[in-house]
Amino acid sequence: MHSYTYLQDFVKQVFIKMGCPIEEADLAATILVAADLRGIDSHGVARLPGYVRLASLNRVNPTPQVRIVHETPSTAVIDGDAGLGLVVAPKAMQVAIEKARQAGTGWVAIRNSNHFGMAGYYAMMALAHDMIGMAMTHAGPLVAPTFSKDKLLGTNPIAVAVPAGKQPPFVADFATTTAAYGKLEILQRKGLPTPSGWVQDAAGDPSFDAHAVKNGGALLPLGGDREHGSHKGYCLGATVDIFSGVLSGANYGPWVPPFATAGFMTSAAQLVGAGTGHFLGAMRVDAFRPAEEFKQHMDNWITTFRQATPVPGQPQVLIPGDIERELEAERRQTGIPLLSQVVNSLQEIADKFGLRFEGN
Amino acid sequence: MHSYTYLQDFVKQVFIKMGCPIEEADLAATILVAADLRGIDSHGVARLPGYVRLASLNRVNPTPQVRIVHETPSTAVIDGDAGLGLVVAPKAMQVAIEKARQAGTGWVAIRNSNHFGMAGYYAMMALAHDMIGMAMTHAGPLVAPTFSKDKLLGTNPIAVAVPAGKQPPFVADFATTTAAYGKLEILQRKGLPTPSGWVQDAAGDPSFDAHAVKNGGALLPLGGDREHGSHKGYCLGATVDIFSGVLSGANYGPWVPPFATAGFMTSAAQLVGAGTGHFLGAMRVDAFRPAEEFKQHMDNWITTFRQATPVPGQPQVLIPGDIERELEAERRQTGIPLLSQVVNSLQEIADKFGLRFEGN
Repeated sequence: MHSYTYLQDFVKQVFIKMGCPIEEADLAATILVAADLRGIDSHGVARLPGYVRLASLNRVNPTPQVRIVHETPSTAVIDGDAGLGLVVAPKAMQVAIEKARQAGTGWVAIRNSNHFGMAGYYAMMALAHDMIGMAMTHAGPLVAPTFSKDKLLGTNPIAVAVPAGKQPPFVADFATTTAAYGKLEILQRKGLPTPSGWVQDAAGDPSFDAHAVKNGGALLPLGGDREHGSHKGYCLGATVDIFSGVLSGANYGPWVPPFATAGFMTSAAQLVGAGTGHFLGAMRVDAFRPAEEFKQHMDNWITTFRQATPVPGQPQVLIPGDIERELEAERRQTGIPLLSQVVNSLQEIADKFGLRFEGN
Repeated sequence: MHSYTYLQDFVKQVFIKMGCPIEEADLAATILVAADLRGIDSHGVARLPGYVRLASLNRVNPTPQVRIVHETPSTAVIDGDAGLGLVVAPKAMQVAIEKARQAGTGWVAIRNSNHFGMAGYYAMMALAHDMIGMAMTHAGPLVAPTFSKDKLLGTNPIAVAVPAGKQPPFVADFATTTAAYGKLEILQRKGLPTPSGWVQDAAGDPSFDAHAVKNGGALLPLGGDREHGSHKGYCLGATVDIFSGVLSGANYGPWVPPFATAGFMTSAAQLVGAGTGHFLGAMRVDAFRPAEEFKQHMDNWITTFRQATPVPGQPQVLIPGDIERELEAERRQTGIPLLSQVVNSLQEIADKFGLRFEGN
């Protein structure tokens, strides 16, 4: 177990060693560890080696000049100047929130960024302002569209955060695939097959092999196959790609840079845009109806759904965000459990930068 | 086979008999038959008896004063005055488009409306303006959230239309359930079971019974069960419900009025809002980047995905909207096939109103 403050401080020191200004290193560390706190372990400190590798490949600019390159009253396009997504995206979300304050809603497309961690963090930034927050990002191609053998989409998550009154907020944050890649890694470690509809093999046939993606196969869009609605998951992943990539001027589809893969830069000449893209939005609740009225109805929505009769074997119907919120409360107290391989990788990073990272 | 112009004219005459002004009857008929043209038969003239029943129950106002009750530069809330959704929603989408022209984007939440037909129609209204269109609506509760025995959500579709250049537009339009209710009706007629993950029975257990929903069971969110990502479909359906209902001041969750069910009005005192709600949006492409540049990249996106290697047994990877567009081109020429029970129901409506409807 590691306390989240210990992890935040370690990650901050690493980002400082990578050349980030102190304030930005602090922000990026807070966002990265927020994923560990909420149980999205695949997007937390386990990814730090990836960010370090990005930096060592010169794919990340530690001192980016994040700037608005085009705007209207309710929109902006932001160039991330190849900064860490963990630094670019919170600044972009601030712009969306400020636009929403002025124009009712704010929508920001970001290009020339990098992996931004947990999408839900940015959506949740809107909550304190009585705004609905939305965040999406594309990612390197691991997913085959319906009927495709080729991998053309990332896991392309969507996050939506909605404020409530006395109830905790509604926070949805999900990959647009049947299962996130992290779920495959868990099965790989256990030597177990996947359920149906998670992956296909290199020939494009349905597969139950947790190693399929590494062996030329692909993750599948939410739904799994056509009969179970995979064309809908494909529509969602495609929409995220178009909003994040085509609208912003970033890359898109098969051109989206993979997270921290060596050798990627060699194909830069064939790219169709600038870096990785995201799409963020904020909607002021009182741009639609009085905030207090809205929040009372959200409380009623939440309690109605939570009090529904559960199916056999389940204690309760959950509201999106329940599991993550409860885990965060627990992990703030008791600390964050890290796999030994994650601890080892963090100790390697510590050695590389002349820092110290304590084991479990 | 019936020509689409014949069907449009018949539906228009029916709406006029229901008391709609000629121009609005014409618009509503065009939108209803647009679903038949695109092969979304469950949302076309097969639904006309439902609209007639709504009117006979006094649940629809044939001469609504559709009005903006609140607005900001990029948002509006519209009260549909209990009008046909087929009349209210196109007016609301015009407001969204006008807001987008002025402020970059426009987002309109609608309350006090009724069933609005095919979501994709409204999203596609944006295309001619070089805008991205979005449309969603909630509907009467037929869907059980993940872990719930109770039905709390509708099939809650999402539509996204994105303009391209030389390529036809990207048009996604899908229910946030594994399967739409119309798919169950097809299996009912054939006496076939459902695939896994489509429905659960009255006890909340997984079912393969195409009649399950009528017998106390429920449709399932996209994904089907937790292992296959149904919590993601639940997040999507819930987001549509919150945007369409809670944000607009319409009903939400289990209170959303079912489509054209007798006796519904008796519980009006317990409602939590006004009628059915929708949520529509328009984003001007050049609020982000020059429209021509965007459309060239969309052409590249579309051709890249269409030219991907298909899986065994499939001729081609499809772009969202391909099937509907090809069917529309065909049906404009050859006519729209109607099931004999649909023809019979239209002839009954003709008799009721002193009109004439020709058989096949």
